[in-house]
Amino acid sequence: MIEHYQAITSFIVELEKLKKVERRIKPPGLSRYENSAEHSWQISLLALTLSPYAKQEVDVLKVVTMLLLHDIVEIDTGDKFAYNANHDDFENELVAAKRLFALLPSQLEQKFLSLWIEFEKAESAEAIFAKGLDRVMPVIQNLHNGCQSWLEHDISIEQVLEKNKVVAKANPELWQWVSQQVKVIGEQAGVREK
Amino acid sequence: MIEHYQAITSFIVELEKLKKVERRIKPPGLSRYENSAEHSWQISLLALTLSPYAKQEVDVLKVVTMLLLHDIVEIDTGDKFAYNANHDDFENELVAAKRLFALLPSQLEQKFLSLWIEFEKAESAEAIFAKGLDRVMPVIQNLHNGCQSWLEHDISIEQVLEKNKVVAKANPELWQWVSQQVKVIGEQAGVREK
Repeated sequence: MIEHYQAITSFIVELEKLKKVERRIKPPGLSRYENSAEHSWQISLLALTLSPYAKQEVDVLKVVTMLLLHDIVEIDTGDKFAYNANHDDFENELVAAKRLFALLPSQLEQKFLSLWIEFEKAESAEAIFAKGLDRVMPVIQNLHNGCQSWLEHDISIEQVLEKNKVVAKANPELWQWVSQQVKVIGEQAGVREK
Repeated sequence: MIEHYQAITSFIVELEKLKKVERRIKPPGLSRYENSAEHSWQISLLALTLSPYAKQEVDVLKVVTMLLLHDIVEIDTGDKFAYNANHDDFENELVAAKRLFALLPSQLEQKFLSLWIEFEKAESAEAIFAKGLDRVMPVIQNLHNGCQSWLEHDISIEQVLEKNKVVAKANPELWQWVSQQVKVIGEQAGVREK
């Protein structure tokens, strides 16, 4: 049994590195960039609060597990900005996922790796919901921090609406409400239209 | 329905403030102090990996929900160091919990508030397990960062073992293994014995 605790501790200590991975967003009220560890915490809570309103019924523990794990590959690959051409980096991320999960006892390794892959494929109800939340979170943050990351990276309202329209697959009403705010608040903040 | 999304968004945006609440630990490999948001993420993953080995069988979603929520009261009260005399601050924290959860739709407000209180009472299997993890996490971190917070605050090995013995209620084998390391690694790092 001790070897299981050694394995789990190695994994948990390796995760410390995600606290160093910077995203492009400055959280509303903070002057520094967000890291991927605190982001993962916040969207797990977004999942817990929005799951009663998901388009398809979801296994909430599965969604939360996906979201707690989804970004740990960035320990090896770094954060990819959603609007960059190289945003999809599945092959490199898979190598990272395999390295990290291999630190765990084999039963957990298999379970987490298959959940991570399921999230990336975005086909199951849980993965579609979790992916939608991962997309809507930085939109909500931009709506409350003066559209900081859109302005800083010269992203247009049209790009925001196009890139994040998958949120509607998780929750169409939520996306309708959020996208209306993107237009109004984005324009007020000086985000270019196209 | 829109009012639910407004309420949930208010709550999630309010949570940004937990990313500013500093703890006493410098995560292994980082030169800055940890914040309570990234801590909450890490112990939620500790729960997912250790739950198969819990002393009593636990509802994992309930444990993870408790851990994602357990520190949000620090937005109002700040982090309390486990070894300080005023560590237990239930009444003030309850006021904070009520304020924060009142931002949510009423069904979620009731559910989260009662989970938060259940965690604080540390009586149910899930609360005992979650509390144990919240205690063991900084011990594991000290064992991998040169015992930084123990040395910085002049905490003895005896205090560490006494203060965190509740970990054994969650998992006696884990605590036995960890407490042996506290003695060996603590002594090597120059942590005083008593």
